[in-house]
Amino acid sequence: MCAMRQADDNMTNDTMHEDGTGKSAGYPGKADNVVYIGKKPTMNYVLAVVTQFNSGMQEVTIKARGNSISRAVDVKEIVTNRFFPDLKEKSIRTSSEELINEDGTKSKVSAIQITLARPN
Amino acid sequence: MCAMRQADDNMTNDTMHEDGTGKSAGYPGKADNVVYIGKKPTMNYVLAVVTQFNSGMQEVTIKARGNSISRAVDVKEIVTNRFFPDLKEKSIRTSSEELINEDGTKSKVSAIQITLARPN
Repeated sequence: MCAMRQADDNMTNDTMHEDGTGKSAGYPGKADNVVYIGKKPTMNYVLAVVTQFNSGMQEVTIKARGNSISRAVDVKEIVTNRFFPDLKEKSIRTSSEELINEDGTKSKVSAIQITLARPN
Repeated sequence: MCAMRQADDNMTNDTMHEDGTGKSAGYPGKADNVVYIGKKPTMNYVLAVVTQFNSGMQEVTIKARGNSISRAVDVKEIVTNRFFPDLKEKSIRTSSEELINEDGTKSKVSAIQITLARPN
């Protein structure tokens, strides 16, 4: 399974803004209420999620691939335990994505998608 | 959030068997159909899950804490994509667990619990 680990190292964060919100191209169908988790400190992404909810979003989705998946779960736990205890966990989904490495070989990497929603 | 990362480094795998199945003390309510993900190669844990299903289990739960969470998702993806495409994802739950470090301080670590089930 080295390939899978390796794929993660080849990932670039060039589609990601400073605060973790994706606003440029790279992911299809991206919206403002998606926070992409990368290799920055966890609290950066926690702040991004909290900011989204404070700006009136009903739902925020946290997405991560490869080794960042653990950090995505950390972000979800910190946001729901410390900042918004009333948030509902709408869904947690996992998937596999295929990446093309620099040398042209393909490798699969796991991904997670956690959607949090305000209570109705 | 250094504390959370640090907690993971302090984790020991002494409650885990070679194949990732937990059969000794440490986790409350543990059963044979639980595979605990540690720092071994991903395929060790994939094999553990596959073995459980082949031995007749209807459900297998994959559990991980801290940095191993990403590996737990890898295991789930490999088992469902490559070995048992018919398996149902019964639940994915995340939680926070409190650990006591060697110096007596407490730190929180995220955990994940993925339950896969045979189709009815």
